[in-house]
Amino acid sequence: MVDIRTRDVFTTMRPDLLLVQSRLEEAVWIDFPGVTDLVLDLVRAGGKRLRPLILLLAGRAYRSDRDTLVTAGAGVELLHTASLVHDDTVDHAGTRRGRPTLNTILPSGAVILLGDFLFAQSAMLAAATNSPRVVSIFASTLADICDGQLREMFFARRLDQSREEYERRIFGKTASLFAGSAEMGAIIGNAPETAVQALRQYGSDVGMAFQIVDDVLDLREVESQLGKPVGHDLIQGTVTLPTIIYASGLTESSEAATRLEAVVSGETDKSSDVDRVVKDIRDSGALDAAMDEAIAFAARSKTHIAAAPDPDVREMLEQVADAVWERSA
Amino acid sequence: MVDIRTRDVFTTMRPDLLLVQSRLEEAVWIDFPGVTDLVLDLVRAGGKRLRPLILLLAGRAYRSDRDTLVTAGAGVELLHTASLVHDDTVDHAGTRRGRPTLNTILPSGAVILLGDFLFAQSAMLAAATNSPRVVSIFASTLADICDGQLREMFFARRLDQSREEYERRIFGKTASLFAGSAEMGAIIGNAPETAVQALRQYGSDVGMAFQIVDDVLDLREVESQLGKPVGHDLIQGTVTLPTIIYASGLTESSEAATRLEAVVSGETDKSSDVDRVVKDIRDSGALDAAMDEAIAFAARSKTHIAAAPDPDVREMLEQVADAVWERSA
Repeated sequence: MVDIRTRDVFTTMRPDLLLVQSRLEEAVWIDFPGVTDLVLDLVRAGGKRLRPLILLLAGRAYRSDRDTLVTAGAGVELLHTASLVHDDTVDHAGTRRGRPTLNTILPSGAVILLGDFLFAQSAMLAAATNSPRVVSIFASTLADICDGQLREMFFARRLDQSREEYERRIFGKTASLFAGSAEMGAIIGNAPETAVQALRQYGSDVGMAFQIVDDVLDLREVESQLGKPVGHDLIQGTVTLPTIIYASGLTESSEAATRLEAVVSGETDKSSDVDRVVKDIRDSGALDAAMDEAIAFAARSKTHIAAAPDPDVREMLEQVADAVWERSA
Repeated sequence: MVDIRTRDVFTTMRPDLLLVQSRLEEAVWIDFPGVTDLVLDLVRAGGKRLRPLILLLAGRAYRSDRDTLVTAGAGVELLHTASLVHDDTVDHAGTRRGRPTLNTILPSGAVILLGDFLFAQSAMLAAATNSPRVVSIFASTLADICDGQLREMFFARRLDQSREEYERRIFGKTASLFAGSAEMGAIIGNAPETAVQALRQYGSDVGMAFQIVDDVLDLREVESQLGKPVGHDLIQGTVTLPTIIYASGLTESSEAATRLEAVVSGETDKSSDVDRVVKDIRDSGALDAAMDEAIAFAARSKTHIAAAPDPDVREMLEQVADAVWERSA
């Protein structure tokens, strides 16, 4: 069945994603005046819904049960939202996607509990699939996310980080949920075990590409595009791939190395100092080098789906992989 | 089978509870130097393990699969621990059971993420039961706990609270997990549906009794027994049953009413003011009146298990109900 609409994954999958959105908005209803509106704002402000999209496509590649896929899709999107709520609290972030975070509106205790409430609702969606294996992936993904976030915190403000450490961290923080989404979709779609593992690998690679692009954009874009300050990661002391690449080319104790160390260590957070280091990194070519690694992950992701039986779905999964790095163009 | 040991539920069930403890300590291992020790301290400091105990007994009342019960028992205890970690962060509590909380040792962001990690591990234990229904109860219990905690926060510092509001709040915060534990145990034990619901009611009543006793002790004991300041709830602006009973007997705008309002509203947190209000409440007889309600809940809990087939297990469940209010003796 060749259809012009299958050319664009976001258009083709829009009806399913709207079902996911509907399920999501049902799930977050909470019996406190005003709070439901805040949470609805949050789940409406979402981006491209890449995690449920991947889950839906992975299920569609095999025998699909649309309703269960939609439920699980809402579950992974809500897990993502809950983890952002806590992440913003941990980082004391004032804005996300250019909008004020819950932290700026509610006391931090309420934000912690609301995040927990969203975790609970996301777990209820996972449980509603009636698949112990889906629930198990769901729970282990949450553990991976926490592991990644804890690593980000415990390794903050240190320049002596390997790429392996960075990759482990972004796998946990970001790629684990992409991997889990693909895996859950494949399981709901009754895919054979080799396909489940292959789709998981696809999701993992797409997720790695996604986070590297995010880390590049944090240093490359201007504040109005990012919806948060430029060099936000540096200010937080989070050492990302572009910074690792840039630092590896510096001479020890050089002026540039000293400047970088001062910002990463938190010795200075003056915007002129941060801007200078951002400029150093931009001028070094490290952003392009990091982008090349993101593109390589996206390319590798496609190799895992070469055996997917439905050519239309395969093409859509490839489009998702490309969309992840093309958003940086 | 009459056995002298069945007379004491804590002795009889100790082998099973040790298995739960072992499963629990396995589950919280985390790959950060020092952090595992902190978390182990936390799960070792637990009290009587009433939640897993109820779960194990509810399962034992019918056909029991010990290993699955142990897994689920570890899951509910860990869910409880995770929720205490977040609760202490929300309350900025410095001590629990007389020991310093994680908040005093780690930055608050790390504590939030560690709590999430413990939630994830508890969900993995629930998922390991391979029962979608157990997982579903587990997730909805977490939602109930959050609801109760959010209510406590949003209704804080207000004296105009009904008993219904108080009961709804403590059901969420505390009784929901006792109810869920009994229900999960019954389901794992393949109990008939009426027994599942009866055991859930039993757990709910025991949990209500437990929380009312806690609220009485907060006003009755001395600091060295509580492991936290006397009148801690009042200082936090949390209005509990003894305070509701006491306030209902006051004349509007009387001196005593004004003193109470000043402490609950947070207008004063001077220890002499708090101590005076604590004394007012003690002298009013409100503590005994609240304890009577706890005892009534404990008595009612026993009516739900009258039909449980195994007399030894029934007796042990009754002992648990009594232990909850006898700890106040």
